[in-house]
Amino acid sequence: MPILERHDTGHIAHLRLNTPQNLNALSDEMLAALQEQIDALAEDHETRVVILSGEGRAFCAGHDLKQMQAARQADDDGRAYFADLFQRCASVMTGLTRLPQPVIAQVHGIATAAGCQMVASCDMAVAAQGTRFGVNGVNIGLFCSTPMVALSRNIARKKAFEMLSTGRFMTTQEAEAAGLINAAVPEAELADATRTLAETVASKLSAAVKIGKSAFYDQLDMPLDEAYAFTGNVMVENMLWRDTDEGINAFLEKRAPDWAE
Amino acid sequence: MPILERHDTGHIAHLRLNTPQNLNALSDEMLAALQEQIDALAEDHETRVVILSGEGRAFCAGHDLKQMQAARQADDDGRAYFADLFQRCASVMTGLTRLPQPVIAQVHGIATAAGCQMVASCDMAVAAQGTRFGVNGVNIGLFCSTPMVALSRNIARKKAFEMLSTGRFMTTQEAEAAGLINAAVPEAELADATRTLAETVASKLSAAVKIGKSAFYDQLDMPLDEAYAFTGNVMVENMLWRDTDEGINAFLEKRAPDWAE
Amino acid sequence: MPILERHDTGHIAHLRLNTPQNLNALSDEMLAALQEQIDALAEDHETRVVILSGEGRAFCAGHDLKQMQAARQADDDGRAYFADLFQRCASVMTGLTRLPQPVIAQVHGIATAAGCQMVASCDMAVAAQGTRFGVNGVNIGLFCSTPMVALSRNIARKKAFEMLSTGRFMTTQEAEAAGLINAAVPEAELADATRTLAETVASKLSAAVKIGKSAFYDQLDMPLDEAYAFTGNVMVENMLWRDTDEGINAFLEKRAPDWAE
Repeated sequence: MPILERHDTGHIAHLRLNTPQNLNALSDEMLAALQEQIDALAEDHETRVVILSGEGRAFCAGHDLKQMQAARQADDDGRAYFADLFQRCASVMTGLTRLPQPVIAQVHGIATAAGCQMVASCDMAVAAQGTRFGVNGVNIGLFCSTPMVALSRNIARKKAFEMLSTGRFMTTQEAEAAGLINAAVPEAELADATRTLAETVASKLSAAVKIGKSAFYDQLDMPLDEAYAFTGNVMVENMLWRDTDEGINAFLEKRAPDWAE
Repeated sequence: MPILERHDTGHIAHLRLNTPQNLNALSDEMLAALQEQIDALAEDHETRVVILSGEGRAFCAGHDLKQMQAARQADDDGRAYFADLFQRCASVMTGLTRLPQPVIAQVHGIATAAGCQMVASCDMAVAAQGTRFGVNGVNIGLFCSTPMVALSRNIARKKAFEMLSTGRFMTTQEAEAAGLINAAVPEAELADATRTLAETVASKLSAAVKIGKSAFYDQLDMPLDEAYAFTGNVMVENMLWRDTDEGINAFLEKRAPDWAE
Repeated sequence: MPILERHDTGHIAHLRLNTPQNLNALSDEMLAALQEQIDALAEDHETRVVILSGEGRAFCAGHDLKQMQAARQADDDGRAYFADLFQRCASVMTGLTRLPQPVIAQVHGIATAAGCQMVASCDMAVAAQGTRFGVNGVNIGLFCSTPMVALSRNIARKKAFEMLSTGRFMTTQEAEAAGLINAAVPEAELADATRTLAETVASKLSAAVKIGKSAFYDQLDMPLDEAYAFTGNVMVENMLWRDTDEGINAFLEKRAPDWAE
């Protein structure tokens, strides 16, 4: 079995982390497999939505600590390996954000450290009730400095600081109220609820969703006037598509749109 | 009847969108009327607070789609019109934020697309229970790229992304928890609750509220030290006003202030 | 008794504002005492966590208004004094954020104006149920322009704007939901709950907590790629410490770490 499974159904690609024996740790191999899929999806015009889940007891428990400790044997005590590792990991995390397709995390069990970062890096997240979220590297002397980049862009800073400095886990209820996940459902309904959300997004005009996702993150860091100038241009382009013309006409005529895509 | 009514009571200007036949759509005419009132209010030293509401079944359902479709008849398929339209719309939205007076949205029925953007662009919002909020342009193939500028500066990003990519409506309860509105009240109490909030703000020293509102948005995008240097200067100017001297003395002497303004 | 008491227990420094007669106002003397302690703590390698609380009925009611009014007697009507005052106050507030050690506000009674700013400027906050939070300077004609710098970086903007322009107090329940505090507990349990939180943080590898706190605020204002490049380097340095090596080994061997620090 591959360490990262991919199943495509209709326009939805489902990626499943598949090394349950180490709680789907982000080993060198797993990061490479994720990067490969991200690169493929970026060019994949059939796929409209991506689901990311984990096999076994956990969504993902973060980095592969045994592999990291082994890297200390190098002449530089692992410095070059660690620098490369965090760069590869950041490339995967920002890759999820920069994929043209929306990415939904389907989360259960635990999502800790870089696993929690992956949830924060997805565009949306659905979790099984009882899932625990943590950036608990501080417990072993390794502050979750890269995970906090994604986490602190999802939730209020005092809550993020508490998780980072105490290692405390957040419940699904807290995670939903804080903005880290979109919804929490009973574990038995997790797969269906995630798929329903994915199908809803996949049913929209895919080109509009893709231009919108890209613009969403681009405008977030801009000053207000720049953000409006930028998104105004995005709206103009969007308006000039044949399928948007058809979508608006269909709405005005109270009928289903006949989209070409 | 004008398409945008204005009633002034005391120091409160109440603007009411008045084209219920198209759910108060932001047509060319409505945008022009809003811009005219915003320009007038910017110079209006009597007005201390602005309320913005909508006549009929909805607060505002966004752009005037029929008018937009008609613009496609031009030689450039509407490109120049659309570019101008989104610029005029952004000017109204940022105009609400940049007015010296606080602007309160009084929201009922539905607030969708640019209507939801208008709620997000006001400084505060009170909604009738049962109001539905959406940035649902994606349903017709037009991603709400300009509305998301305001929305994503009001609420957490995963919630904003879900609304944008699924078209799902948010309830008043969700909107309040997310930070899109300040309060939800029974519809029968909406006008009174909004007016009470407006009167509370209008009862304060107007010059202080105005210097404060302007500084609020200016400092939000600054790095911390710059924000403190900037607002420190605002505080110095504020302290040197005669009415602030009087306001502090009145507080220390446990009496009502005798303000000149 | 000193106006700012300091008690050290283990690795925790507890600072207590001690002028209950003026609700622990941030007078010139109090600001100087706070700055002195902040400067000392910045060099204090024994202290791992700081608690900040207030003696008497209130945590802190903001600036010392009598002292400010007295400054108006100067030839420049107080302009130079006010400019200096807000600079000294900002230095204390940013000093809390920039201390290497996490700072926890232990809040009760009222936290208003610069007192509320101090809560917002701490990394975490625990409050007694019934505490009231306000940025109510607008009531006396002095908009809380400097407090809003910290407040608007803690909570959603519409909620912040409402507090600033109406002077309305926020309850502990609202403050917790909004993200201004981490937890609210019965007043009788406040000291113990705050100490337990402090001890949890103090039990972690202190060097990791310090490098993490500093990186937390530094990365918040960076664009995503820059934030990842920056925190990636922080992670590399953190990984190369002897105590982190030991912490990870201890975790993998299911035993307690033997940390040198």
